[in-house]
Amino acid sequence: MKLLVVNGVNMNMLGVREPEIYGTQTLPDIEEELREYGRQRDCLIECVSSNIEGELVDFIQSAMGRYDGIILNAGAYTHYSIAIRDAIAAVSVPTVEIHISNVFARDFFRSVSIIAPVCVGSISGLGIYGYKAAIDFFTHSEVVN
Amino acid sequence: MKLLVVNGVNMNMLGVREPEIYGTQTLPDIEEELREYGRQRDCLIECVSSNIEGELVDFIQSAMGRYDGIILNAGAYTHYSIAIRDAIAAVSVPTVEIHISNVFARDFFRSVSIIAPVCVGSISGLGIYGYKAAIDFFTHSEVVN
Amino acid sequence: MKLLVVNGVNMNMLGVREPEIYGTQTLPDIEEELREYGRQRDCLIECVSSNIEGELVDFIQSAMGRYDGIILNAGAYTHYSIAIRDAIAAVSVPTVEIHISNVFARDFFRSVSIIAPVCVGSISGLGIYGYKAAIDFFTHSEVVN
Amino acid sequence: MKLLVVNGVNMNMLGVREPEIYGTQTLPDIEEELREYGRQRDCLIECVSSNIEGELVDFIQSAMGRYDGIILNAGAYTHYSIAIRDAIAAVSVPTVEIHISNVFARDFFRSVSIIAPVCVGSISGLGIYGYKAAIDFFTHSEVVN
Amino acid sequence: MKLLVVNGVNMNMLGVREPEIYGTQTLPDIEEELREYGRQRDCLIECVSSNIEGELVDFIQSAMGRYDGIILNAGAYTHYSIAIRDAIAAVSVPTVEIHISNVFARDFFRSVSIIAPVCVGSISGLGIYGYKAAIDFFTHSEVVN
Amino acid sequence: MKLLVVNGVNMNMLGVREPEIYGTQTLPDIEEELREYGRQRDCLIECVSSNIEGELVDFIQSAMGRYDGIILNAGAYTHYSIAIRDAIAAVSVPTVEIHISNVFARDFFRSVSIIAPVCVGSISGLGIYGYKAAIDFFTHSEVVN
Amino acid sequence: MKLLVVNGVNMNMLGVREPEIYGTQTLPDIEEELREYGRQRDCLIECVSSNIEGELVDFIQSAMGRYDGIILNAGAYTHYSIAIRDAIAAVSVPTVEIHISNVFARDFFRSVSIIAPVCVGSISGLGIYGYKAAIDFFTHSEVVN
Amino acid sequence: MKLLVVNGVNMNMLGVREPEIYGTQTLPDIEEELREYGRQRDCLIECVSSNIEGELVDFIQSAMGRYDGIILNAGAYTHYSIAIRDAIAAVSVPTVEIHISNVFARDFFRSVSIIAPVCVGSISGLGIYGYKAAIDFFTHSEVVN
Amino acid sequence: MKLLVVNGVNMNMLGVREPEIYGTQTLPDIEEELREYGRQRDCLIECVSSNIEGELVDFIQSAMGRYDGIILNAGAYTHYSIAIRDAIAAVSVPTVEIHISNVFARDFFRSVSIIAPVCVGSISGLGIYGYKAAIDFFTHSEVVN
Amino acid sequence: MKLLVVNGVNMNMLGVREPEIYGTQTLPDIEEELREYGRQRDCLIECVSSNIEGELVDFIQSAMGRYDGIILNAGAYTHYSIAIRDAIAAVSVPTVEIHISNVFARDFFRSVSIIAPVCVGSISGLGIYGYKAAIDFFTHSEVVN
Amino acid sequence: MKLLVVNGVNMNMLGVREPEIYGTQTLPDIEEELREYGRQRDCLIECVSSNIEGELVDFIQSAMGRYDGIILNAGAYTHYSIAIRDAIAAVSVPTVEIHISNVFARDFFRSVSIIAPVCVGSISGLGIYGYKAAIDFFTHSEVVN
Amino acid sequence: MKLLVVNGVNMNMLGVREPEIYGTQTLPDIEEELREYGRQRDCLIECVSSNIEGELVDFIQSAMGRYDGIILNAGAYTHYSIAIRDAIAAVSVPTVEIHISNVFARDFFRSVSIIAPVCVGSISGLGIYGYKAAIDFFTHSEVVN
Repeated sequence: MKLLVVNGVNMNMLGVREPEIYGTQTLPDIEEELREYGRQRDCLIECVSSNIEGELVDFIQSAMGRYDGIILNAGAYTHYSIAIRDAIAAVSVPTVEIHISNVFARDFFRSVSIIAPVCVGSISGLGIYGYKAAIDFFTHSEVVN
Repeated sequence: MKLLVVNGVNMNMLGVREPEIYGTQTLPDIEEELREYGRQRDCLIECVSSNIEGELVDFIQSAMGRYDGIILNAGAYTHYSIAIRDAIAAVSVPTVEIHISNVFARDFFRSVSIIAPVCVGSISGLGIYGYKAAIDFFTHSEVVN
Repeated sequence: MKLLVVNGVNMNMLGVREPEIYGTQTLPDIEEELREYGRQRDCLIECVSSNIEGELVDFIQSAMGRYDGIILNAGAYTHYSIAIRDAIAAVSVPTVEIHISNVFARDFFRSVSIIAPVCVGSISGLGIYGYKAAIDFFTHSEVVN
Repeated sequence: MKLLVVNGVNMNMLGVREPEIYGTQTLPDIEEELREYGRQRDCLIECVSSNIEGELVDFIQSAMGRYDGIILNAGAYTHYSIAIRDAIAAVSVPTVEIHISNVFARDFFRSVSIIAPVCVGSISGLGIYGYKAAIDFFTHSEVVN
Repeated sequence: MKLLVVNGVNMNMLGVREPEIYGTQTLPDIEEELREYGRQRDCLIECVSSNIEGELVDFIQSAMGRYDGIILNAGAYTHYSIAIRDAIAAVSVPTVEIHISNVFARDFFRSVSIIAPVCVGSISGLGIYGYKAAIDFFTHSEVVN
Repeated sequence: MKLLVVNGVNMNMLGVREPEIYGTQTLPDIEEELREYGRQRDCLIECVSSNIEGELVDFIQSAMGRYDGIILNAGAYTHYSIAIRDAIAAVSVPTVEIHISNVFARDFFRSVSIIAPVCVGSISGLGIYGYKAAIDFFTHSEVVN
Repeated sequence: MKLLVVNGVNMNMLGVREPEIYGTQTLPDIEEELREYGRQRDCLIECVSSNIEGELVDFIQSAMGRYDGIILNAGAYTHYSIAIRDAIAAVSVPTVEIHISNVFARDFFRSVSIIAPVCVGSISGLGIYGYKAAIDFFTHSEVVN
Repeated sequence: MKLLVVNGVNMNMLGVREPEIYGTQTLPDIEEELREYGRQRDCLIECVSSNIEGELVDFIQSAMGRYDGIILNAGAYTHYSIAIRDAIAAVSVPTVEIHISNVFARDFFRSVSIIAPVCVGSISGLGIYGYKAAIDFFTHSEVVN
Repeated sequence: MKLLVVNGVNMNMLGVREPEIYGTQTLPDIEEELREYGRQRDCLIECVSSNIEGELVDFIQSAMGRYDGIILNAGAYTHYSIAIRDAIAAVSVPTVEIHISNVFARDFFRSVSIIAPVCVGSISGLGIYGYKAAIDFFTHSEVVN
Repeated sequence: MKLLVVNGVNMNMLGVREPEIYGTQTLPDIEEELREYGRQRDCLIECVSSNIEGELVDFIQSAMGRYDGIILNAGAYTHYSIAIRDAIAAVSVPTVEIHISNVFARDFFRSVSIIAPVCVGSISGLGIYGYKAAIDFFTHSEVVN
Repeated sequence: MKLLVVNGVNMNMLGVREPEIYGTQTLPDIEEELREYGRQRDCLIECVSSNIEGELVDFIQSAMGRYDGIILNAGAYTHYSIAIRDAIAAVSVPTVEIHISNVFARDFFRSVSIIAPVCVGSISGLGIYGYKAAIDFFTHSEVVN
Repeated sequence: MKLLVVNGVNMNMLGVREPEIYGTQTLPDIEEELREYGRQRDCLIECVSSNIEGELVDFIQSAMGRYDGIILNAGAYTHYSIAIRDAIAAVSVPTVEIHISNVFARDFFRSVSIIAPVCVGSISGLGIYGYKAAIDFFTHSEVVN
């Protein structure tokens, strides 16, 4: 099994600041932890990230035929990027939406995810563990037994 | 660790119909599976369910001081029960919101969860596995190591 | 043919007050009249009622496989109970929505029925006769011929 | 008793197409069936129809003092014709609103009837039987006894 | 000076009913009174009316180059006929909007006139006198002096 | 007959600027013209004006029992002053609303008059003549005959 | 005089937690204090409470003909229970709405009470004293003199 | 203890008209009664009133450091005066909002108080007694014991 | 191939006025030009037009089984005629929506076409050429090769 | 060059309270500082202020022909005073809108300035310096060189 | 004549998937076909595309002074990119908006094009032919004759 | 002191066109002028710009720990880029928002800045001077003294 982890806008700030809130892990640390987490489950994890909406579209398009699933944290684009939504709908790769914090508990203009309706499911507020739960979901016959 | 799984309105129909969509597991089957899943992780899982909004409020209130976490699938009440929201906010027990299917991909009046802002996090669309991910979240130091 | 008549919140006040508007028939009187109306058409009518939203969900769920149709007057729950809507959608029993008065002519927050889209049809403003029209609809090959 | 059946816009397409959905009855067939249904109940049924909003207003105005009731299926005008609403309110003839299918289960701009508040009542989703239920309502002392 | 008085939908019911509210004048009576009112001011008044939206458009179009002004009571079309609005904007004949009663004090969907922005002005609630005030406005140098 | 003409906010700018649009008449000129117009019709016209919302409320309150009618041009307060609306509703003096230009053809936040529903009627876009039409309305038995 | 105090959803949490905010009085303590407060004023106070919307409807219905007034703190149901609203409107017992804290200063979905329009009045933000002010209101000829 | 009673727009009409609804007490009568009511409770009541929004702001500002509480009936300003809201928020004097009638049961544009969120609490629909309940609230240790 | 060109409300004003904007072609000129344009492509073009909404419905209905496509410029009805929308959806004739000018760049109430969702496609702002592009679309295998 | 500084509602509270937030400068202090700031730039600054909406309208009207620019801090009126907007639009004096704090970052009903569209520009959140930046803007050829 | 064809986000997926719906033509195939189509009409067609919003802005800016027209299919950016709208408005190159499918028949958040008001015209639902119709429009004197 | 000037989408068009409105200064000219303006005040100004939303996010992130302030003109992204908002909120560098023209006076979808709430302040409509006022604000102790 081969999964693509896509991190979107402002995710590269993780671990750089406010370590008392988000921990001291940087995005590269997290990506390494997820690759290791995958290795233990015979699952190849590859990680990409960008602040640019159109590059996230590129990443998602490139997953078609090459990955078994996408784990996507689109950051703020979650709430208004119809382009990313269309990209997910256009490729046939099942996608799980991740948010590290509980974004739906914040500003009213963050109360809806425009991406959720085209995803298989969504996980928010569970921290870095959310990515792992998504990996487990894709490989979860192992977890259950 | 002790967790309370609360299933809300219409959840008792699981496994009773449309097995091709929701599988043949009934709610008692699922509850048993979750209890077993917890036992393997040294975590006591107790399960309650009701179709009545006020009884769900009762269950949540009763968790105060007795459980380390609540795993709540409120069904349709998710979208309009300020009463359940208030109950979650009133007790000091961290709560994870679960939806078996991706409810946010359906009717517009289901696009917002009035409960999400007072929960720690939320998982939707991952099927029965969503409950297990919530259990792992509460006990996840075990998972990570 | 076997039909379940479900009366919802505040319907137990019928006949108890404002007889000049609603007539002097109490809910038990009406239920008896409908049972008699059914008997004349070889149709078994059973009647239940409750003020509690979750009990109405219970009634609707219990109709699955046991009744050929539901005649439902949900009262005020008509306008906001996604839970009752989900219950109707979940069971495979065709449901006709009834309102004794023309509720859509009142307050703006009563102008939409959240239940109507999952019902077969809806009748309002025809008084107690509305229930009978619904019975005739279910049995109406008799009426037409 | 004398009733006027008014069919509005696009109703003349009934039976002409999609017979697997709407049956093979044309509007003239239905009108004949309703006249016959009335004859059996000592009730004179007269039928008119038009695609033109202003002609429907004419029909409704002409009923004043000449009919005991109007049975109106305004088609799409139901949702925006304040003109038809005003005509119903202006004449003193009680009107029952009919929809063959359950229009309220379709597009959001069909979720409200602007005509309903000035009608005695409304029936939708019961097919051609809806017209008969309206006739029975107007003559229903016969039905009840 | 030559003015066209256009009366729209349901205006032909004036004087036919509720004489205690609207007076006993029928539309033909009013039209005659306005013609007489004009004659005393050397102003030719011609009157047309219809219940059909498109015919009102026809009347307005026909005024181009033939009348010095239009006095228009569009009835319920006032609130939703973009077609009539476009006709007024398309011809170069100044138009005054009239309502016999104060329509803006009624239902919320009557609170806005879609026609007003393309009219020279608007008069409502002044009864039949409103038509005369509009005539005086068009000829008002006589009135002022 | 005794009428009170109340001019509201920014009306004191009339004639002071943009004479090519609004004419060279100042508010005192207009008030004098209206008083003279009244004298010719045996109608006493008194005029007051203010830029202060509360003083307009005072003027309206003071008319109770002392005037037969109010002619009110509230200026921009028209669109949001519930206070002026309440004052009109509180006194039993019939009020006609005036706007010199066609305010409803301007910004969308001017499309509704919050005052209109408690007035007898409203006139807009007819220039200074609008005040005279209102005087004629109050005294119009003279005009008609 | 006989008054019914009805406490709704989550009110049973009073005194159980956050005593620094809500005080250490439990709901039974408060009910006892109100009964005593009534005894000093020759007024019989009876108290009921429930987390279940439909049971609150039952309590309100049961007050008809047996109590002189209802003092109702519906909790979160205040903002969406058309069912409770209908029950208050259906019985002829005057009802005063109470909120211990100033609920209208919180989330936007709490800014409107759907119950207020059918109550005699409403008191919020005055703490437990609010209940006593309502008792005084019902018996207030004693207070004034 | 020293309290300032502030009465806003149109409150000076109390007792002047519609005595069958509001009683025959004028605003000065009520102010005197409140001063007397205060004297019996060792509480100095001072009363001011104005129809001018800005003067109400002045009164509220002047209370800072001079009164222990404000009892404010802002009249129609309640629903849109952000200026009065800001003044209450700016001074540190606790304020209770009063409405003699149940304003929230009237027009939809009166359903929200823009002032309530910065007040300690609010009382409506209890008539003149509402002011007294507010006085008792401020001095209520006396009432409770 | 046989196409029906339907022109709606106010289209008969084309060429009659503002020739500097819309050119000097009248509607009959344009219809002739389109018929000629069709003849050169072996495509029979027939043209109808009306200002009356219901007659446009008649035209569209009449196309069923007789034409291979409809080219419809509904004028202002574009934005509110659910009746025309239903007629297009009811007949099985593919329809292309045309607007001579770019209507979506005008008033906000013209920003949505209620007809577009049931059409095959839509062309606006391309002038008279838009009709020809629609003809080419229906016959366009000729164009491409 | 001659500029008028107009301070609106609640601005007279500056320096009177919360000096830790707003500094210890009173409004007269600030006005003196601005006058001095102007003197150094050969610019006459005159300052007026009021809590009364109508007096602010008076100040703005009085600037016509007497000042080269207005610097306006309207306080809360910013968000709803169409009257002040009209006054600015009516006089030909360029106006810069000032807010000491960043008002647009506060309550949602402060997110729009109804005055901004008729101003030359707007400055917010820059403290007292904002007034000076506006003075520099009016006189800024000096600043740039 | 020289035209620039700009294809936006997700257009590079054309022909790559769902060939049964969109045909087997890839974007390069389509671009070649359009260049050929231009050559036959003495019109130079150049084609660019990107998934990145800002690069589309770059393309549009670069057309100024170098192309006679832009043919733009912005994909999902159509519905929310004010940046692309501003770029079109900033350059003086006439732009025609294209959509291959009828986007306005899909989700409600696709019902409005934010780009359309600054385009010359718009074509949707006509497939690849839409691009050709736009070319013909720019060169259409050839087509007409 | 070190400040970063960030210019967003379409800002590179400045000076290239419409010099009669925006002047003949190109973006490089303006950047040079601002650098010079800074040099005179011992303030290092560095300038970056891009049409790509994600690159603007990159610029803002890169300012953390390296600049004392950001001066940001985001162009059209101002109104919908939650991503840029999040970037500003994530770095601890105070940011002032600039708009050369008064954007809030244009289309309704430009009436709100989604970025303003996380900025220190905002300046619009003051032309190029706005950037300088922001520089003065950051260094303004020099200006004041």
